[in-house]
Amino acid sequence: MEVKGYKFSAVEAAIKKPGRLDLALIFSEVPANVAAVFTVNKVKAAPVLLSMERVKNGKAQAVVVNSGNANACTGKRGLDDAMETTRLVAEGLGVPDDSVLVSSTGVIGQPMPMERVRGAVDKLVEGLASGTLDGVAQAIMTTDTFPKLQVRNGDGYAIAGVAKGAGMIMPNMATMLSFVVTDAAVDGVCLQQLLKEAVDSSFNIISVDGDMSTNDTVVLMANGVAGIPLLKPGTPEGENFAAKLKDLLLALARQIVQDGEGATKFVGITVKGAVSTGEAKQAAMAVANSSLVKTAFFGQDANWGRIIAAVGYSGAQVDPERVDIFFDDVRMARDGIFAGGDAEERGTIVLKNKEFSVTIDLKLGSGSATVYTSDLSYDYVKINADYRT
Amino acid sequence: MEVKGYKFSAVEAAIKKPGRLDLALIFSEVPANVAAVFTVNKVKAAPVLLSMERVKNGKAQAVVVNSGNANACTGKRGLDDAMETTRLVAEGLGVPDDSVLVSSTGVIGQPMPMERVRGAVDKLVEGLASGTLDGVAQAIMTTDTFPKLQVRNGDGYAIAGVAKGAGMIMPNMATMLSFVVTDAAVDGVCLQQLLKEAVDSSFNIISVDGDMSTNDTVVLMANGVAGIPLLKPGTPEGENFAAKLKDLLLALARQIVQDGEGATKFVGITVKGAVSTGEAKQAAMAVANSSLVKTAFFGQDANWGRIIAAVGYSGAQVDPERVDIFFDDVRMARDGIFAGGDAEERGTIVLKNKEFSVTIDLKLGSGSATVYTSDLSYDYVKINADYRT
Repeated sequence: MEVKGYKFSAVEAAIKKPGRLDLALIFSEVPANVAAVFTVNKVKAAPVLLSMERVKNGKAQAVVVNSGNANACTGKRGLDDAMETTRLVAEGLGVPDDSVLVSSTGVIGQPMPMERVRGAVDKLVEGLASGTLDGVAQAIMTTDTFPKLQVRNGDGYAIAGVAKGAGMIMPNMATMLSFVVTDAAVDGVCLQQLLKEAVDSSFNIISVDGDMSTNDTVVLMANGVAGIPLLKPGTPEGENFAAKLKDLLLALARQIVQDGEGATKFVGITVKGAVSTGEAKQAAMAVANSSLVKTAFFGQDANWGRIIAAVGYSGAQVDPERVDIFFDDVRMARDGIFAGGDAEERGTIVLKNKEFSVTIDLKLGSGSATVYTSDLSYDYVKINADYRT
Repeated sequence: MEVKGYKFSAVEAAIKKPGRLDLALIFSEVPANVAAVFTVNKVKAAPVLLSMERVKNGKAQAVVVNSGNANACTGKRGLDDAMETTRLVAEGLGVPDDSVLVSSTGVIGQPMPMERVRGAVDKLVEGLASGTLDGVAQAIMTTDTFPKLQVRNGDGYAIAGVAKGAGMIMPNMATMLSFVVTDAAVDGVCLQQLLKEAVDSSFNIISVDGDMSTNDTVVLMANGVAGIPLLKPGTPEGENFAAKLKDLLLALARQIVQDGEGATKFVGITVKGAVSTGEAKQAAMAVANSSLVKTAFFGQDANWGRIIAAVGYSGAQVDPERVDIFFDDVRMARDGIFAGGDAEERGTIVLKNKEFSVTIDLKLGSGSATVYTSDLSYDYVKINADYRT
């Protein structure tokens, strides 16, 4: 099923190396309600500062996105460039400037090559006639190896979203962008609440937690073109929309982890038995972000000791003599010590899989949380050492 | 100059792979005042738990240390093993059990091979007749590539210390051990205060900050055998001792960074102009611990954007439009944007050095701090993926 009332375009503006799409446009034929979540980094890129301002009025009609240059740490010129980009797009579309949002990802600290953006806007707007959301998913890629696109169908409406991923090693600067469109009609205030909740249970439970880059942005547009009644929280229809949105964002988040820089493993880390949900997430994130744990995953080394040590410094309440650790269903540790038997051999077999789970039972309470992470490989280092060259 | 009244020994007990020293003993011929700093990880290894108890009475006469096995997450058996080790050593030395401290580093979660420890204690004690502190420095190494030993001479006394290092990537579990002996006479309470201050300005300003492993331990013994008067805080002699101790620990800390797992660079990160010293350190540590910054150092990529982004998420107060960044004396950014000119070329030349400094001026206040870090290389991943195999 199609998401009605949107058009898409993606072109090559030569901001990235030649031969790759790097400028994309999402256009709603009518003004849409809009919600957004942005980075909390104190150093915010120019497009983030501009888009934060513009989403305040709750309406938007287009998002223009480039990859290859983050337009971050570019001062007043960066803001001027972001504004000019939206003005050129607005002119091409025949909509007000302030109904166009802008987003960028790529290298920090270099001025936007505006002559290339200027030269590509006409083609970008023309491309709406035949463009696809898949083209947008491709154009926003940086070190991603595959485009990330998900669609969910509701009762008389659809939701579609794209995302770009990032380095997997820490919740560190690695830019995460996602743009989601629906033809359902959703009230603006409600839309922001739904987006926040959905981000908390998707992009915020992967080990790139998105709130650290200078550019992280998630935008959700709802244009109502499907013609179904306004979705309201608390109603079955509203809950159904919320569930579909969460499911879609979680699927995108999982794709981001699967495509982590240099990743060879996809690992779900569950902490249960914590004194609270918050502490469960805190402990799971400490494990997911530990470079020593992640290199052990890469080495297929059933080194549960590094996992319990990460739990120990996570800040969560822990009784070391109660902790159980499992790789899939293989118990590696019982009450804080090695489970014995053939656990080492069986655990090592689990780690040879591309996907597996780690479960840590603290046996203190009923708090539980799952986060997703990848391993840390030679290729992570290679990709990030050579990123700009 | 020699540190009087101590004997040292190091033997091969086959806890590590054959052919390497792995069991060491430091012995003071008379009971010494002792101070110690231990990991704050909630999961503490058995030798840490035992030694924490024993330093409470302020006196100790020996430290027995093994590498190859951390004796962590080993439950009651681990505590029994740690106690047996000290008892065997105490018997051999003819001193009370509780005057012997114990420390371990190596793999977590595997029981101590006690039959090998038992079989080596006699040789260990006999070795005191001819052993050296350099042997101890060798025996405590794990992934270290060189032994770390420093000596400082005071007015009528000496201080000598050894350390073992760790992974450089984060303040994560990477065990840091250091043992320092002096023949000066220092009151026990004063000794603990001096050690704490010296650790804060040495091991706690490197990007392995020691307080995260299950086993981190720093022990300082003062046996008074030099025969000089008791050193007191506030006196010139006391201040001189404090300065020498700090200098010695900082030299050991720098050696640890230089020998970081897979490290090819040694980088001093200074943040100045912060609103407080605490925030300066917080910002500097965020930069020092950023995997993206560290891979850029490895790649010799003058990517100052990653540095300002790390400062932005550090939690320190930052005005992005004021930040200046320097590589050695090359200004890379002025007021938050690229400094222009040939900064890129000159900055890249700086990064080709094995040692360089990064200075970040926030221009908000007078808080300033320097921390030391290494780069993140292919070899870091290799060392840690294959650590147990």
